[in-house]
Amino acid sequence: MSMKRKKITVIGAGFTGATAAFLLAQKELGDVVLVDIPEAENPTKGKALDMWEAAPVQGYDSYVKGTSNYEDTKDSDLVIITAGVARKPGMSRDDLVQINQKVMKSVSAQIKQYSPNSIILVLTNPVDAMTYTVFKETGFPKTRVIGQSGVLDTARFCAFVAEELNVSVKDIKGFVLGGHGDTMVPLVRYSYAGGIPLEKLISSDRLQAIVERTRVGGGEIVNLLGNGSAYYAPAAALVEMAEAIMKDQKRILPSIAYLEGEYGYDGIYLGVPTILGANGIEKIFELDLTEEERAALNVSAQSVRDVMSVLV
Amino acid sequence: MSMKRKKITVIGAGFTGATAAFLLAQKELGDVVLVDIPEAENPTKGKALDMWEAAPVQGYDSYVKGTSNYEDTKDSDLVIITAGVARKPGMSRDDLVQINQKVMKSVSAQIKQYSPNSIILVLTNPVDAMTYTVFKETGFPKTRVIGQSGVLDTARFCAFVAEELNVSVKDIKGFVLGGHGDTMVPLVRYSYAGGIPLEKLISSDRLQAIVERTRVGGGEIVNLLGNGSAYYAPAAALVEMAEAIMKDQKRILPSIAYLEGEYGYDGIYLGVPTILGANGIEKIFELDLTEEERAALNVSAQSVRDVMSVLV
Amino acid sequence: MSMKRKKITVIGAGFTGATAAFLLAQKELGDVVLVDIPEAENPTKGKALDMWEAAPVQGYDSYVKGTSNYEDTKDSDLVIITAGVARKPGMSRDDLVQINQKVMKSVSAQIKQYSPNSIILVLTNPVDAMTYTVFKETGFPKTRVIGQSGVLDTARFCAFVAEELNVSVKDIKGFVLGGHGDTMVPLVRYSYAGGIPLEKLISSDRLQAIVERTRVGGGEIVNLLGNGSAYYAPAAALVEMAEAIMKDQKRILPSIAYLEGEYGYDGIYLGVPTILGANGIEKIFELDLTEEERAALNVSAQSVRDVMSVLV
Amino acid sequence: MSMKRKKITVIGAGFTGATAAFLLAQKELGDVVLVDIPEAENPTKGKALDMWEAAPVQGYDSYVKGTSNYEDTKDSDLVIITAGVARKPGMSRDDLVQINQKVMKSVSAQIKQYSPNSIILVLTNPVDAMTYTVFKETGFPKTRVIGQSGVLDTARFCAFVAEELNVSVKDIKGFVLGGHGDTMVPLVRYSYAGGIPLEKLISSDRLQAIVERTRVGGGEIVNLLGNGSAYYAPAAALVEMAEAIMKDQKRILPSIAYLEGEYGYDGIYLGVPTILGANGIEKIFELDLTEEERAALNVSAQSVRDVMSVLV
Repeated sequence: MSMKRKKITVIGAGFTGATAAFLLAQKELGDVVLVDIPEAENPTKGKALDMWEAAPVQGYDSYVKGTSNYEDTKDSDLVIITAGVARKPGMSRDDLVQINQKVMKSVSAQIKQYSPNSIILVLTNPVDAMTYTVFKETGFPKTRVIGQSGVLDTARFCAFVAEELNVSVKDIKGFVLGGHGDTMVPLVRYSYAGGIPLEKLISSDRLQAIVERTRVGGGEIVNLLGNGSAYYAPAAALVEMAEAIMKDQKRILPSIAYLEGEYGYDGIYLGVPTILGANGIEKIFELDLTEEERAALNVSAQSVRDVMSVLV
Repeated sequence: MSMKRKKITVIGAGFTGATAAFLLAQKELGDVVLVDIPEAENPTKGKALDMWEAAPVQGYDSYVKGTSNYEDTKDSDLVIITAGVARKPGMSRDDLVQINQKVMKSVSAQIKQYSPNSIILVLTNPVDAMTYTVFKETGFPKTRVIGQSGVLDTARFCAFVAEELNVSVKDIKGFVLGGHGDTMVPLVRYSYAGGIPLEKLISSDRLQAIVERTRVGGGEIVNLLGNGSAYYAPAAALVEMAEAIMKDQKRILPSIAYLEGEYGYDGIYLGVPTILGANGIEKIFELDLTEEERAALNVSAQSVRDVMSVLV
Repeated sequence: MSMKRKKITVIGAGFTGATAAFLLAQKELGDVVLVDIPEAENPTKGKALDMWEAAPVQGYDSYVKGTSNYEDTKDSDLVIITAGVARKPGMSRDDLVQINQKVMKSVSAQIKQYSPNSIILVLTNPVDAMTYTVFKETGFPKTRVIGQSGVLDTARFCAFVAEELNVSVKDIKGFVLGGHGDTMVPLVRYSYAGGIPLEKLISSDRLQAIVERTRVGGGEIVNLLGNGSAYYAPAAALVEMAEAIMKDQKRILPSIAYLEGEYGYDGIYLGVPTILGANGIEKIFELDLTEEERAALNVSAQSVRDVMSVLV
Repeated sequence: MSMKRKKITVIGAGFTGATAAFLLAQKELGDVVLVDIPEAENPTKGKALDMWEAAPVQGYDSYVKGTSNYEDTKDSDLVIITAGVARKPGMSRDDLVQINQKVMKSVSAQIKQYSPNSIILVLTNPVDAMTYTVFKETGFPKTRVIGQSGVLDTARFCAFVAEELNVSVKDIKGFVLGGHGDTMVPLVRYSYAGGIPLEKLISSDRLQAIVERTRVGGGEIVNLLGNGSAYYAPAAALVEMAEAIMKDQKRILPSIAYLEGEYGYDGIYLGVPTILGANGIEKIFELDLTEEERAALNVSAQSVRDVMSVLV
């Protein structure tokens, strides 16, 4: 098998896309192409150049190229989509969905043309519907079109728990099913510190407060920043999934995956535990759920369907 | 010796400060306090929280705290200063110097009060004069007040050379003396690829073009970004110096150091090769210079003195 | 707090001790002193020098010194004990205990003299009784005398599970209580793959087989090697505990800890879940046990007491 | 390009081979097959299993398999040869050469059969002649059959210099041409600390002493160990070359390369500066030599030819 350096494209050079590009380079997972629209070509080039200039100090040999020309993305092994707009005051949810759907259609065409064998990771919100759009538009097999949400939700949950217990983040394990944000379904009974169920270590009141804080974790950052949204943790989440795929690690990570019968749902993208490896999603784990969890997951699935109904 | 976790304060939560905080956390060099003015308290907290939420995925146990209260910085082992303004259209150089001098005075008082035993790294421009200001205001020994410029200049030079030769950045070594930017003095004869002098591998025309590009490397990024300046490479440069100090690595790195006779200068901060370790600047190397290099260094030193003359 | 480089002593320059020294250097946790008896001085120096010669390639600045002179260990922050003999054919268990007890007495005296403020990690078998011996001989507080066994047992269990499921080792979590080896008490109900209880993913037969293989994991390696025992995984386990302490990570790891009432035992060293940080064992977690687990733990504790009864 | 995990075979499960396998696994460069003769099958399996059991603690997903069956090495991307005997008292040099030549013939046949597209790194001594043997026996292109010696020699030199100057190994750069050991040709004028020529920092007496110590660096370890030879630094050197190739880093490293006219030699393997990347040796740098260096290199080349004349 060729040992030629691999190639990763990050679409969207905003804070999340740029941070993801930087983290990918740090891990030397391959050369990185950061691409944005022609109007943003210069800032995209500036960010990429700045990252490349950090390479000698950080010690990575991944070249980072900024561009607005999709020819530069040719034959990428992995494509990460962060492009799209954030919801602004006065914008309806439906408007948001349709604007970003348009962006997904546009970038899907480019990916299909230039990197027909790539695996795609989608971050753009609403992520379930956007991943579905990319799946439909590219016609790629479902194993190669994957959305991110659970890795980030879990990371936030774990950070809050580590702080609560004053222990290492390395020993906290959280578990989230379903859609991103409000309707996420945290499985607290599958969440641990050093292997000990959290329910034995944290009062149910505090634990519930942590779950609630996780649900609105994105909003907490938006409110603090005042003008923008989180990008360090989202980018880190994307890159963990990317690393699992590019190094064929067979990680067990939550993915937004296309369901065809799993958990009783069909034809939608939803957050479920998966194995990520060289082939993308290599397995979906189906868990027994309590009635309460099942009900919550139904709410989450319905919320995804509601958004999908807005797609044009 | 206590194994209690170390503490690093980053003053200024703009892009460079925030990126530096993130890179410090990644390296688990200690807990990080990111501090900015009260008006920026919420965004500062938001950025810090976002970094902390990335910790479970990136696998670091450094806690990152955002604040506007210097009490939170108490007993820091290392303080990094990125605060200050960038030159804006219509602002004279003298105005810039005096505005940032005021910022340095303010933060120096806080550092002196809360972290009297810390080592200080300064990035704020014009960095030679600003490091001098912090040195004077804190009254810290010269070994513990250090400016950054040569690590960044060298990194840029190395990135350009690696690209030119299409070889690993790990094998390129550059060498820069003097002030930051226009008057930097690159010692091309002390610059190598895999140990081979660059002059044997690159035509003198191309090499001169790379030197010129390095000189204006900051400006190249400013022009591309359109609205802001470089932060990935500057932050990485700061963190390389921080790591050398906090891990007592005895790295040989260029520092903005206070000279008392070295190279024939007295009472100014200027970029020279140093050893960085647990005590800050542990040694300054004095090199024999060619006449041409000596002349260029004189220009650089004069430029620093010109800026210092504006200090109030 | 001083940023002077930390110092770690590894007593015993056999395969495990040497491998631990190498792994410590790789992590740049401090300078490493590898010490053995005068008869082994030259090989000890040879191994240390070989490791130091690997430093420029591996990129670590930890100096590794080989010696038979305990003065070289002066003021160590952490001391790791791997010294002692392995059980040989024809040697009774009691003989083994008494020979290694003598070694522990000898090294304890040296540690007490030269590094009175150090934290001690013990690997020498039978580890529970040997850790107890060091505790008694040094008179150090119980938080600073710690034995290793559960990290290794858990690592083996996790490796077997990862192979069984063909998933990443990063996502497997095992849990072991009690003594090392035959009487270890694996808590399968607290063991997971990607947060999913193993009991849901592996048949109880296969899971039981993995538990049994873990119990005799040390013997499996001994049988294969023919002449010696495991050292990669034991050294890695030691270094994980060392890193938790030296970087003050507050890791939740199983330690051989001195019990004073916890789990109903008093005055013995036994494997329990702990928090490891700058102060050594910072907390012991007490878990509710099932009757079966409790009975197994009693067997384990009795086995430790049996060995302790042989101490002279 | 497929993201399937890569495969590396290490032939020879002695200390160097085993250590190389471990370092490869740590870097997650691919799955590792450690292979030795059938008589050593069990110890080989034992070492590999021990490494795999370290994986959960060290955090790597590279599987390490021990075997004596070359079918297990099928389709390796990289093959590292450490097999062969060391010179024993009473054994003539010619005997050594012919014994190891036989080993090289045997393993070459296996590599040719099972991994016809692999790149081969040879460590077995006398390395120049053994690399030549593998080149002839496999019929692989010269770019894919590479010997190790200069990376190790350089590492030793750098370690000695770092200790002499009490500075970081990260900032020392050495340079060695020619054969391994006695006839190596260190280019002191191309050796630096922090970019500063060593000749400006170390007296010529001390520098000459360091060069001499480097020349006999292997013997120094042999004498200290009493029973065996160095393996940490040799394995680290191999793995640096392996990483350069497998991550396509385009590192500038000294390799034992097949010369066809370079430096005026033809048809021999000799140590020269090269670029290592996905295609193996991607370039050989030809340097201008002083008369003294040229003479020393001639001695080195003649020494290689002398050994080659013993090949049968």
